[in-house]
Amino acid sequence: MSTLRVVFEPYQRTIDVEPGQVLIRAAMDAGVHVNASCGGEGVCGKCRVIVESGSVKGGVSEKLSREDVERGYRLACQARVLTDLVVRIPVDSAIDRSALAFTAEPRRTARIRQVSFEDLKEQGLFLPPLEKRYLNLPEPNAQDRLPDVTRLVSFLQVHHHEHRLTVSLPVIRKMPSVLRKKGFEVTATLARPVYDTGKTEIVNVQAGDTTDDNYAIAMDIGTTTIYGQLIDLKTGDVLAEEGDFNGQISYGEDVISRIVYAEKPGGLERLQAVVVGTINKIIGKIVHRSKVDPEDISSITLAGNTTMTQLMLKVDPRHVRRAPYVPAATLYPPIRAVDLGIALEEHASALVYPAVSSYVGGDIVAGVMGSGMYRTDALTLYLDIGTNAEIVIGNREWMACAACSAGPAFEGGGIKFGMRAAKGAVEDFSIDPVTFEPMLMTIGNVRPKGICGSGLIILVATLFETGVIDNRGKFNRDLKTDRIRENDGVWEYVLAWAKNTQIDRDLAITEIDIENLIRAKGAIYSGCMTLLEEVGMGMPDIDQIILAGGFGSYVDLERAMVIGLLPEVDVQKISFIGNGSLMGAKMSSLTNRIRRDVVEVTRKMTSFELSETASYMDKYVAALFLPHTDINQFPRLKARLAAKRQKKIYSTDS
Amino acid sequence: MSTLRVVFEPYQRTIDVEPGQVLIRAAMDAGVHVNASCGGEGVCGKCRVIVESGSVKGGVSEKLSREDVERGYRLACQARVLTDLVVRIPVDSAIDRSALAFTAEPRRTARIRQVSFEDLKEQGLFLPPLEKRYLNLPEPNAQDRLPDVTRLVSFLQVHHHEHRLTVSLPVIRKMPSVLRKKGFEVTATLARPVYDTGKTEIVNVQAGDTTDDNYAIAMDIGTTTIYGQLIDLKTGDVLAEEGDFNGQISYGEDVISRIVYAEKPGGLERLQAVVVGTINKIIGKIVHRSKVDPEDISSITLAGNTTMTQLMLKVDPRHVRRAPYVPAATLYPPIRAVDLGIALEEHASALVYPAVSSYVGGDIVAGVMGSGMYRTDALTLYLDIGTNAEIVIGNREWMACAACSAGPAFEGGGIKFGMRAAKGAVEDFSIDPVTFEPMLMTIGNVRPKGICGSGLIILVATLFETGVIDNRGKFNRDLKTDRIRENDGVWEYVLAWAKNTQIDRDLAITEIDIENLIRAKGAIYSGCMTLLEEVGMGMPDIDQIILAGGFGSYVDLERAMVIGLLPEVDVQKISFIGNGSLMGAKMSSLTNRIRRDVVEVTRKMTSFELSETASYMDKYVAALFLPHTDINQFPRLKARLAAKRQKKIYSTDS
Repeated sequence: MSTLRVVFEPYQRTIDVEPGQVLIRAAMDAGVHVNASCGGEGVCGKCRVIVESGSVKGGVSEKLSREDVERGYRLACQARVLTDLVVRIPVDSAIDRSALAFTAEPRRTARIRQVSFEDLKEQGLFLPPLEKRYLNLPEPNAQDRLPDVTRLVSFLQVHHHEHRLTVSLPVIRKMPSVLRKKGFEVTATLARPVYDTGKTEIVNVQAGDTTDDNYAIAMDIGTTTIYGQLIDLKTGDVLAEEGDFNGQISYGEDVISRIVYAEKPGGLERLQAVVVGTINKIIGKIVHRSKVDPEDISSITLAGNTTMTQLMLKVDPRHVRRAPYVPAATLYPPIRAVDLGIALEEHASALVYPAVSSYVGGDIVAGVMGSGMYRTDALTLYLDIGTNAEIVIGNREWMACAACSAGPAFEGGGIKFGMRAAKGAVEDFSIDPVTFEPMLMTIGNVRPKGICGSGLIILVATLFETGVIDNRGKFNRDLKTDRIRENDGVWEYVLAWAKNTQIDRDLAITEIDIENLIRAKGAIYSGCMTLLEEVGMGMPDIDQIILAGGFGSYVDLERAMVIGLLPEVDVQKISFIGNGSLMGAKMSSLTNRIRRDVVEVTRKMTSFELSETASYMDKYVAALFLPHTDINQFPRLKARLAAKRQKKIYSTDS
Repeated sequence: MSTLRVVFEPYQRTIDVEPGQVLIRAAMDAGVHVNASCGGEGVCGKCRVIVESGSVKGGVSEKLSREDVERGYRLACQARVLTDLVVRIPVDSAIDRSALAFTAEPRRTARIRQVSFEDLKEQGLFLPPLEKRYLNLPEPNAQDRLPDVTRLVSFLQVHHHEHRLTVSLPVIRKMPSVLRKKGFEVTATLARPVYDTGKTEIVNVQAGDTTDDNYAIAMDIGTTTIYGQLIDLKTGDVLAEEGDFNGQISYGEDVISRIVYAEKPGGLERLQAVVVGTINKIIGKIVHRSKVDPEDISSITLAGNTTMTQLMLKVDPRHVRRAPYVPAATLYPPIRAVDLGIALEEHASALVYPAVSSYVGGDIVAGVMGSGMYRTDALTLYLDIGTNAEIVIGNREWMACAACSAGPAFEGGGIKFGMRAAKGAVEDFSIDPVTFEPMLMTIGNVRPKGICGSGLIILVATLFETGVIDNRGKFNRDLKTDRIRENDGVWEYVLAWAKNTQIDRDLAITEIDIENLIRAKGAIYSGCMTLLEEVGMGMPDIDQIILAGGFGSYVDLERAMVIGLLPEVDVQKISFIGNGSLMGAKMSSLTNRIRRDVVEVTRKMTSFELSETASYMDKYVAALFLPHTDINQFPRLKARLAAKRQKKIYSTDS
């Protein structure tokens, strides 16, 4: 599908969009401000634009008079691009004109990095962990009385050159009936050893030819959410994907409170059963949706942080939170899924991602594997941002890692109107630099009901760049707008008035919200800097940054740099892998090469305890500003702010 | 303890016995007949003997007058040998005197063969499957944050030179608390790989030093009875032993009826649960009796025939009994004991003896391993006699094996007064060749209540040698004795009149009993001969015979040859190993060398189907005589019978 060109006047901004794109999104992506506070639902009627040439679909509303419509006015949040367009943002006043000088930066989200099945094959990384073989066995007779198992094993040896085969009891139990169901035509599922010295295990036998159906499940066991994918091992395709809240949330929001609960009598058993309950719910959904026969699923790969992993395996995690913070184990043997209570067939094995330490868990190791960081020469900063942020710096030769507590701000926690990235969450924002009226975009283009992590970053960055807040995150109380106000003793900026929201009250961002975000980004930035210092390096040495985490794909990179969450680098150096833990789990499902390499990788990963590094606290305190105490670490922003100050003077003068 | 010498007059038979031996046993062992039909309980009062020199304890009874006692008369079944003795058997009549010419052969049971722990070590066969290591681990601190598992594994690597270690989830679960219970002093149980390419698994960790306690269980899973031993792996000693009826008996006496039951809905599951119930009952008893902590038991080795093995593992055995008689498997992987429902700790593994075919099972393979037959150059005939008889011929180079259905006669089944070898069973017998009065010995020296397998052999052999039955097993109806009679149309010989039994009716052996025994021994003998012929050999090629089976230790070898159960060979060539299956299971518990060799051995064992060998039926029919149609195969017996005929003529003449 070819793209269409939209020119916004009088800003003379041009952007290429997909046909059907909503006009207001195009404006936002182009960095053009249009007042709009209903999230794109068409309620507030403020996003009036004039289509000067080309045609759009929709955008005619009762908010517009017949004359307006005839003159080309449309609501930008309702109009979809059908052809190349020239769109004019109405300039109704001197105030509006003065705003012309300030256009926002276009949105710059990170390029999404994915490893395809074909890539794996091309790179010689494809060692299938599970293969199916269709076998037309000779039937026994008085001259050939081989036992069922021996018959199958010998056939594989002679006709398929398979050696060092083992068979488990559940498979032996199936043999007599399965072999005779379709006249000794069977399909054997072979689980390959991770190491060459290991044995190939015949994990299943099925009557007839089922070689087309060979599946695995990958799962990310997060503290908050659990995601699962059902993977077709023939194609590498994800046939179904599903996420759900970790049922353990009822027993504590964070890792520490889960550990505390696990220490109570029966607590560990309870938490184990609950997380497996969520896992099984997800399995049920993805199996149902993909219409796969559960018998064709032979493995599940699970990645989670150290505590989630120990809880899932019913391994007491109490020492994870007690100095000197020692996990029970970081490497786990393959386990039968049914032994964990996982609702798969008896032959399915559960593979658990290894960890590095109590605070650098299997989820991070999975991200390092899934992102390919462990195979590159490029010096990489891997950053997984969630309630805890994990940082890995290194390349194929070495890796240093650390974790820091970011707090829940990036997941909408501790924010007055915080919410997860779901329908109605403010995900994009710009502000009129003169009137300070907002332009809000929400997930799903509905009236807003809250603020998600990526939206929060954009909000704070934009408020900062337009001077609505200062570098300590405090509101400029002198600005002439009723959107900035004191409410119950806390200063806030009203994003949308009650009538334009779904929550029937004014939706605002408060100084406390901003403070929480600054703390979170300060922890992460100072963590990166401390870890770099520990390995004797600086940010200029970094060749690439890989972002992982639930909110990352929506994050506007430039704005993440404005608030000082990310160091100021070329955005081309930044890529995003989404749920790194899930990606790593998927990769391990697809190839034994990852399973083999991962143990070596965990050995290479040196874990640092930031809290015990003398300079960390100093760095943290210095990072509790927007973007940082030392603005010289953000030269581009510094220049931009300087330029804006000049324009401001000029426009005030005009 | 030195032995005492007893001389029996007028037979001039001398025998050395242990002090305290009952006199009638000494007589029986010496081949001296004393009338006695109460089994040694002292009821019938017939076993009067005169102690001419030396002294005995007991034997004075109301059955003897004061004068008799003063003259030295004692009841032989009540008198115990205290010193060297000269004992005279009273000769009260011409008839008695005529009997002097006929003395029975002394008892010749097989020498018992056992392999000791020291033998294993001396022969370089000792590769301990389970070893314990006491470890005083360094405690973690801020500079040493190794995970618990890594801490233990590294310590084993560095300080004990242990490599290629694996750990299972149950052990990981134990680690955090066990390590901290006694200040990081722990004992690790290491399960050694059977093959050098395998890994050592840390199967258990315990707080403190428990290296002195390291145990295993060996079990024979018989169709009728299950035997278990608790073995100290440090010394090789059997700390406790227990047998019980296989609970499956209620669902069918023999293998076929069990398979039939297993084919019913839920039948297989039921039989599996029932046999495990018996296994657990035995485990409970031997654990209780030996006062061993179940946590110190890390393995159970199970040997049984193919059907018992499949039932125990819940593997459908229906094809074992259907042509072409194919078992599901003959080799089984190690299984967690708890997965079978066996009441041992989670870390205990269950090792199942491999089989050769549907009819040559793990019990026989265990016997071949336990007896050492597989390591000898001597050409060996291994014979395990039970309801089924299994025959193995060969040596370290090759082995041929076959099974034949002997029927239950050797276990007391199908015999009118048949019973198992338990208290009250007639186990020894001689007969006065003139009066045809019996001399009965029972297990436990109590009044008889039945006939056990070994007793049956002696009965039939003695009846045959004394001419009470002919070579077709039919009674000589011309003999002048009321003990031979027709009862309900069946001819029988009364062993004990009702008043001298525990069953309040006359105890007899019938022609039908004898016919059953002849069929059973005929099947075995012809089986051996057919198998020998198949491998192009004859009985003279055999260097040694190893007998196994429940009744074997009591079998009088000469009499087994008289009935043609065993070929006529030098008794020095015959040895007895008792329960070969249990012995093999014990050996596998003690050393991995057996576990390693056994797979190779099963490959060497070629299984023959006797029923499909053309000559088997001919040989069987020829063997349905006492001892055989061709008496020339039993030259010693032939000579003896000839000599007796002469004496008979002589004595009748006198």
